[in-house]
Amino acid sequence: MGNEGLRALLAAVQGGTMTTDEAMEKMKQFPFEDIDFAKIDHHRAVRQGYPEVIYGERKTPEQIRTITQRLLASQSNILVTRASLEAFEAVHGIAKDAVYNPLGRTITIKRFEVPIPSSTIVIVAAGTSDLYVVEEAYETATLLGNKVEKVIDVGVAGIHRLFGRLETIQKAKVVIVVAGMEGALASVIGGLVDKPVIAVPTSVGYGASFGGIAALLTMLNSCASGVSVVNIDNGFGAAYNASIINHL
Amino acid sequence: MGNEGLRALLAAVQGGTMTTDEAMEKMKQFPFEDIDFAKIDHHRAVRQGYPEVIYGERKTPEQIRTITQRLLASQSNILVTRASLEAFEAVHGIAKDAVYNPLGRTITIKRFEVPIPSSTIVIVAAGTSDLYVVEEAYETATLLGNKVEKVIDVGVAGIHRLFGRLETIQKAKVVIVVAGMEGALASVIGGLVDKPVIAVPTSVGYGASFGGIAALLTMLNSCASGVSVVNIDNGFGAAYNASIINHL
Amino acid sequence: MGNEGLRALLAAVQGGTMTTDEAMEKMKQFPFEDIDFAKIDHHRAVRQGYPEVIYGERKTPEQIRTITQRLLASQSNILVTRASLEAFEAVHGIAKDAVYNPLGRTITIKRFEVPIPSSTIVIVAAGTSDLYVVEEAYETATLLGNKVEKVIDVGVAGIHRLFGRLETIQKAKVVIVVAGMEGALASVIGGLVDKPVIAVPTSVGYGASFGGIAALLTMLNSCASGVSVVNIDNGFGAAYNASIINHL
Amino acid sequence: MGNEGLRALLAAVQGGTMTTDEAMEKMKQFPFEDIDFAKIDHHRAVRQGYPEVIYGERKTPEQIRTITQRLLASQSNILVTRASLEAFEAVHGIAKDAVYNPLGRTITIKRFEVPIPSSTIVIVAAGTSDLYVVEEAYETATLLGNKVEKVIDVGVAGIHRLFGRLETIQKAKVVIVVAGMEGALASVIGGLVDKPVIAVPTSVGYGASFGGIAALLTMLNSCASGVSVVNIDNGFGAAYNASIINHL
Amino acid sequence: MGNEGLRALLAAVQGGTMTTDEAMEKMKQFPFEDIDFAKIDHHRAVRQGYPEVIYGERKTPEQIRTITQRLLASQSNILVTRASLEAFEAVHGIAKDAVYNPLGRTITIKRFEVPIPSSTIVIVAAGTSDLYVVEEAYETATLLGNKVEKVIDVGVAGIHRLFGRLETIQKAKVVIVVAGMEGALASVIGGLVDKPVIAVPTSVGYGASFGGIAALLTMLNSCASGVSVVNIDNGFGAAYNASIINHL
Amino acid sequence: MGNEGLRALLAAVQGGTMTTDEAMEKMKQFPFEDIDFAKIDHHRAVRQGYPEVIYGERKTPEQIRTITQRLLASQSNILVTRASLEAFEAVHGIAKDAVYNPLGRTITIKRFEVPIPSSTIVIVAAGTSDLYVVEEAYETATLLGNKVEKVIDVGVAGIHRLFGRLETIQKAKVVIVVAGMEGALASVIGGLVDKPVIAVPTSVGYGASFGGIAALLTMLNSCASGVSVVNIDNGFGAAYNASIINHL
Amino acid sequence: MGNEGLRALLAAVQGGTMTTDEAMEKMKQFPFEDIDFAKIDHHRAVRQGYPEVIYGERKTPEQIRTITQRLLASQSNILVTRASLEAFEAVHGIAKDAVYNPLGRTITIKRFEVPIPSSTIVIVAAGTSDLYVVEEAYETATLLGNKVEKVIDVGVAGIHRLFGRLETIQKAKVVIVVAGMEGALASVIGGLVDKPVIAVPTSVGYGASFGGIAALLTMLNSCASGVSVVNIDNGFGAAYNASIINHL
Amino acid sequence: MGNEGLRALLAAVQGGTMTTDEAMEKMKQFPFEDIDFAKIDHHRAVRQGYPEVIYGERKTPEQIRTITQRLLASQSNILVTRASLEAFEAVHGIAKDAVYNPLGRTITIKRFEVPIPSSTIVIVAAGTSDLYVVEEAYETATLLGNKVEKVIDVGVAGIHRLFGRLETIQKAKVVIVVAGMEGALASVIGGLVDKPVIAVPTSVGYGASFGGIAALLTMLNSCASGVSVVNIDNGFGAAYNASIINHL
Repeated sequence: MGNEGLRALLAAVQGGTMTTDEAMEKMKQFPFEDIDFAKIDHHRAVRQGYPEVIYGERKTPEQIRTITQRLLASQSNILVTRASLEAFEAVHGIAKDAVYNPLGRTITIKRFEVPIPSSTIVIVAAGTSDLYVVEEAYETATLLGNKVEKVIDVGVAGIHRLFGRLETIQKAKVVIVVAGMEGALASVIGGLVDKPVIAVPTSVGYGASFGGIAALLTMLNSCASGVSVVNIDNGFGAAYNASIINHL
Repeated sequence: MGNEGLRALLAAVQGGTMTTDEAMEKMKQFPFEDIDFAKIDHHRAVRQGYPEVIYGERKTPEQIRTITQRLLASQSNILVTRASLEAFEAVHGIAKDAVYNPLGRTITIKRFEVPIPSSTIVIVAAGTSDLYVVEEAYETATLLGNKVEKVIDVGVAGIHRLFGRLETIQKAKVVIVVAGMEGALASVIGGLVDKPVIAVPTSVGYGASFGGIAALLTMLNSCASGVSVVNIDNGFGAAYNASIINHL
Repeated sequence: MGNEGLRALLAAVQGGTMTTDEAMEKMKQFPFEDIDFAKIDHHRAVRQGYPEVIYGERKTPEQIRTITQRLLASQSNILVTRASLEAFEAVHGIAKDAVYNPLGRTITIKRFEVPIPSSTIVIVAAGTSDLYVVEEAYETATLLGNKVEKVIDVGVAGIHRLFGRLETIQKAKVVIVVAGMEGALASVIGGLVDKPVIAVPTSVGYGASFGGIAALLTMLNSCASGVSVVNIDNGFGAAYNASIINHL
Repeated sequence: MGNEGLRALLAAVQGGTMTTDEAMEKMKQFPFEDIDFAKIDHHRAVRQGYPEVIYGERKTPEQIRTITQRLLASQSNILVTRASLEAFEAVHGIAKDAVYNPLGRTITIKRFEVPIPSSTIVIVAAGTSDLYVVEEAYETATLLGNKVEKVIDVGVAGIHRLFGRLETIQKAKVVIVVAGMEGALASVIGGLVDKPVIAVPTSVGYGASFGGIAALLTMLNSCASGVSVVNIDNGFGAAYNASIINHL
Repeated sequence: MGNEGLRALLAAVQGGTMTTDEAMEKMKQFPFEDIDFAKIDHHRAVRQGYPEVIYGERKTPEQIRTITQRLLASQSNILVTRASLEAFEAVHGIAKDAVYNPLGRTITIKRFEVPIPSSTIVIVAAGTSDLYVVEEAYETATLLGNKVEKVIDVGVAGIHRLFGRLETIQKAKVVIVVAGMEGALASVIGGLVDKPVIAVPTSVGYGASFGGIAALLTMLNSCASGVSVVNIDNGFGAAYNASIINHL
Repeated sequence: MGNEGLRALLAAVQGGTMTTDEAMEKMKQFPFEDIDFAKIDHHRAVRQGYPEVIYGERKTPEQIRTITQRLLASQSNILVTRASLEAFEAVHGIAKDAVYNPLGRTITIKRFEVPIPSSTIVIVAAGTSDLYVVEEAYETATLLGNKVEKVIDVGVAGIHRLFGRLETIQKAKVVIVVAGMEGALASVIGGLVDKPVIAVPTSVGYGASFGGIAALLTMLNSCASGVSVVNIDNGFGAAYNASIINHL
Repeated sequence: MGNEGLRALLAAVQGGTMTTDEAMEKMKQFPFEDIDFAKIDHHRAVRQGYPEVIYGERKTPEQIRTITQRLLASQSNILVTRASLEAFEAVHGIAKDAVYNPLGRTITIKRFEVPIPSSTIVIVAAGTSDLYVVEEAYETATLLGNKVEKVIDVGVAGIHRLFGRLETIQKAKVVIVVAGMEGALASVIGGLVDKPVIAVPTSVGYGASFGGIAALLTMLNSCASGVSVVNIDNGFGAAYNASIINHL
Repeated sequence: MGNEGLRALLAAVQGGTMTTDEAMEKMKQFPFEDIDFAKIDHHRAVRQGYPEVIYGERKTPEQIRTITQRLLASQSNILVTRASLEAFEAVHGIAKDAVYNPLGRTITIKRFEVPIPSSTIVIVAAGTSDLYVVEEAYETATLLGNKVEKVIDVGVAGIHRLFGRLETIQKAKVVIVVAGMEGALASVIGGLVDKPVIAVPTSVGYGASFGGIAALLTMLNSCASGVSVVNIDNGFGAAYNASIINHL
């Protein structure tokens, strides 16, 4: 639309039915987005199949189904995070290839292939109770086109378990560390690898864990230098970050 | 004193100059402390030479000197914590054997021998910036009659350094772990030893360490089971605890 | 396993089928854990029957049953904390000797005898509403092999009640103090005994108790020197600590 | 003034020089304060000599002197809280009978006698470091016309000291409890007396005392029923409250 | 009991069957509570009919009924706070004169008359949503033997409503101010009366009221001098305080 | 009423049946509100039809119906905020023209026309999950007599969407910005318009959004100068503010 | 520049030396800012003389002087906030008409007249210690072209003082309320006027005022509907807001 | 060393002077670190010249000089962060090529070349007051071997400034965003680039910015997906992260 209007205007100038001054004036009135859209979101357009993400929290199954339907038309894969089983059933009604991960609470629909780098993302988790975040990260990273490996239950209270899996972790291009309670795992791993470590505090814990604040602060204050942090329980965000890096 | 009064009263009853009812009545008026003092503080009396502790913060050098002078009369060793150099100089004027630890900010005066168990307390610290707490703990534990060993700069970001000193740590009867920033060291050590671990968060750090809160929360939420925690920067409290355990 | 591999390698060197250089190279590839496991976890192996602990929160009854089944095979007693009645029923299906403490929300399975020291752990609680933490601590300490005594409802607002039980408390080798609301009990007891006091703040209270923060801060700031603190409602952790000390 | 205007208006109505409607209209324009002042502040006027209070923080010595001078004209005693030595010197220049309490940081000028009830206010403090608040409370209560007694250094870590002074405390009509660190003293005293207890948390402490928050929360959550609380370090407010009660 | 033992001992000394030294020794072993009970709780005994209070939160109806039954035997009135309807029904089964206040969530059983002073307690509340706290305070104060008046819905956003009730408020001997949201009412009333004002923050509000913290801070920082504060939603504590003062 | 009493009193003075002194005395007893009501709330009376607002939280449907009924008698439109469907049904029983907005949880009854300025209020929201606040604001502003436009889903993560709607926003007389999560939208819009911007943080988000605190702090710290803030989720308050400004 | 480039491009199209397609392509490469600058900041350009604002905190006097010098060239008045005396002296060296307000810590340079509406902004402050914020607001509002009136020391603890100034306040078009401690003044005024009230919490207070948080929360939770809030101590922001509204 | 010992042991086995069992036993005694050091820190050794980092806070100039001297011997470049001018002077005394950045408070000594990728890191900052963090990040990234570009003063309140620099930002391989106050810049940039964005909250701001917490929360809650966060003011950590990614 914007482009059409612009083209028409240029044609008018070309055809002499509009002066350059008139054109200048008119262009100032042009709807902003139409001109700039391409430029700003250029990077998005180039990778066809790039998933659209729906944040499922506080949305009804019907709303999620409607949005999904609209997005399916636009050539993209789809990821719904924080999705209930009911939401999945609603989506499944219109997309038989939709897949539900009940632990990670994700719905994924893969319609297009995305390029997958040869390097891997490794997701390390302190305990089995952190799995709901691991799975959200796993589904996200996979749909975004990455090889992903999981290393679970290697919390620092039994540090030999971690060392047994160190080689796997050190081979990654990016490491996601998922931990609740005191979240010390991020610092330990940050000191053992020379790759970017993205730390995800989880809300696992009780008492003075304050729903993940303890782990969050631990990770922000990590004395290991290569650690950056995302929001509590934000497996999606960590995987998205990791995927960007893995595709560099 | 209280005991004298009580004895006199009993003698009066015995001698018939006071009825039992009168005695009952009088005893209700007895100064509370005199009767109970012995019982409550019995344990204190038995270990002659046990140090008296003066919390030096917010006290003037003169106040500290005065209190010290009074306490020296009562057969005890003396520990002043959070003491400035000025405070030390004031104390040194009246006690030439007073010793100042400028890093730990302690003044110690040792006049009496205390029994020293054969087992050791090991103080482990994450970084050299935590030394001011280590030294406070060291002076306290030493004056209380303990063999103390220090293991410094073994933070989790370079975990091999810790492993190089593991044998020393595992030989302790009690371990004090001192760490600021994210405080993860307590969890790691808690998982490696089967001795009581007393964790001291320090106020070392910046930004979201919030003056030691991050380390405090980390330690309280430790997924290792043998860890208990004292107040931020409370090297004295940790050593006091450790000494009680070491003397059991 | 790791040991077997290592022995085989040494034999090959001995037998001349492998050069020392080749052996050096191979040993660098050795799975870390296998070498170190024995050393690090040595202390665990020595006390057969030592319980395995399952943190029941966020685990389904099925998950808990499965883990329990696996652990029963490994010669250990079992403790499940934060266990629902449903979890107990699932476990009971496979272990008829499992015992449920509904107040403490623990499942215990005792298959092996553990040595019990002659000294006692005393658990002191401010109010009857703190009992859920007391019971968790009690079950934990008992299964870990300790004589445990409970002193309940001796909060500081009626301090004579506490004094009536003082002798019991002073005879303990370790004291666990459980208190919610303002948590002042820990300081008072800390001043009355010369044994290690492990304080557990509880989430009992309302308004500005903030789910246990008030009691936690009170205990961390205790002016009595022999007090250390564990996480809010962490009866298990307190008992674990106390047991380590009681077994020293 | 307001009263005069009102009387004049009524006289005009009475004299027939103003209609009731005109009077109604005029009364709506009456300055609010003039009518209500007497009523609202009536209680203040009745007690001549009642001190005027100047909050000295963030005020220059000159400002404090000026305000003092103005107030001295109005028949009242004067209390300056949070006053520096410089402020005192400025005030002393215009009022030779001004008295400075350097610990409590108060300036008092007593020009008029106020009635003093026969009952007493007792101020109890946990430690000598809380004295700056005790003194502010003492000066305030004294100037407001009260008999005040101080009981210092009876913190709960050595509870026998408190019991030795219990009789004094129990004789008070109102008790002010001043404590920092964990502030447990208020609960203990609240359980021992049946008089109103006003608790003042102090900012004495370190680490997780957070400038008095720990003591504040302790006091707000006191399990003893007769305790109410004022702001951190607010010795003035506690004494003001206590004085109102003591004069009932 | 304790007294009997003591009397027996004195008789033995009197009768010459026990030396004073033996008596001294024996007295140190005396159960603490028995001696001190009378002294410490003397004040309680004197006012027969004084209610026993049961904090109903986290207690089952059965527990509450059992405790009630036991207390009814001891000559006291009974107050259960935070009581559910189920708890009431359980209590009603054993005490037909039990009364339930569903808004204040209190159960009261009045068996004995208590003296009622001629002065009144006035409870002022900002809004109708604060009524649940008002009612808890009202029931408490009434059962403790007080004339109580309620002034509701006079929040500062429509301050003329407050002024319309000012005379009632100013006649009180003690004023309880109940307010949620921003809690400004306490300051305004504190400036209008010269009686003790006990402020109760409520958890009414949303967003940045943080469950009553906003009102709590407002009240603690009140610029009016006669205001002291109790815990959030603690209508019981405020009334208990007010009653102590009203009975002075 | 108050006016009638006052008029009667003036008539009595005029008629000589009351002295001015008697009148003075009586006037001091006048119910405060009656005199002042007109003056203070004058502004309210002038705009007949101005809605009465009922805060529906913590009120039963019956209470809401009763209050509504009473208010309908007083010539005003009615707005119930935070209303449940049950509340609506109760109100609908007595007012068939009541309208429910289930997303905004408002009940509105419009009986009287209010003047509507020609300028508009624009409500801008970052995401569709913020709609519940948008709708509350929309209903409030509309009932208060304003033209309102909504611009939804223009969060800063896709800033071109915002620019596409900029002209609409810049034409407003007042802008309400509704945003959760990080709340950055307020700053961006504050920098793009020269109209008052009222920012409403929402509780949308998870983890470290802390129920709206993150967005609240963002908005309070906005580096754009024309932004002021209301409470979390307070769509009503924002609209009320905006309406006052729009009617200036 | 951007405009020149655009005009040249249009001329090339007009002259036939560039096709419309080529032009379309080229325009996508255009530097963003050049096109949009005028549109976005149009509103700024129209009011010549509009002040440029320099936030003086963390800037050296030299930096402030340099920026000032540059800005003086651009036809604007200048306001420096949070300026030290040293900063003023540096600025005064290059602008003899610079004026310093030491209390408000502002430097103002007025070179151009700005239109002043006939309506007024009234700044109301609770206490004299809030004056530093009042003055910053006053200087800002004045330089932005407003009639400003100040009403000081009308805190709610002596509410009659406020009522004496009510008429002045009610005549304002916008009211700024400045208050520290408990900040209740905003609610009271919000209930008394029907104009926009912009509340500024100040950091005046101690203890649980937490550097202004108490007042901030009070204001955010105000039960009066017309109140919005700016950052703690942000007199500048409040005045900027008020000025925008006053110029509507 | 460790390797030598191990080789000797293998030789002994090979030579038959040690049985495999004896070798097994001995290996368990091996100093841990010696075996693992190479493996764990292998990645460090490979990049000769890699800087050693000294955290300068709480270290005396003498301590910093001593550490620097020791490290200079080990073939590495050196970075001191949080360094005072005094620290620099001490270091400069032993290393004439040391360079001080007074704004960033860094000392850098570059003795060895490190490989520099062709891609760039761009550091974007909201305001000039954030420069101290920008400079720390800049010095760190440069010494670690990166091309770094700075884009300053493009805060969201004047968003056209950001758009004018967008092309530069979009060309980066990694973007560091530095912002204080409300920290909204990270979200806006996160939505405009498809590269990893590392956000650094700064402590710039006042009032409710709480020393950087506001910006920290904003960044953690960013609705843009590619943003991860480091500690407040942690320019070093951000640059370290960015450098790892840039070298991938």
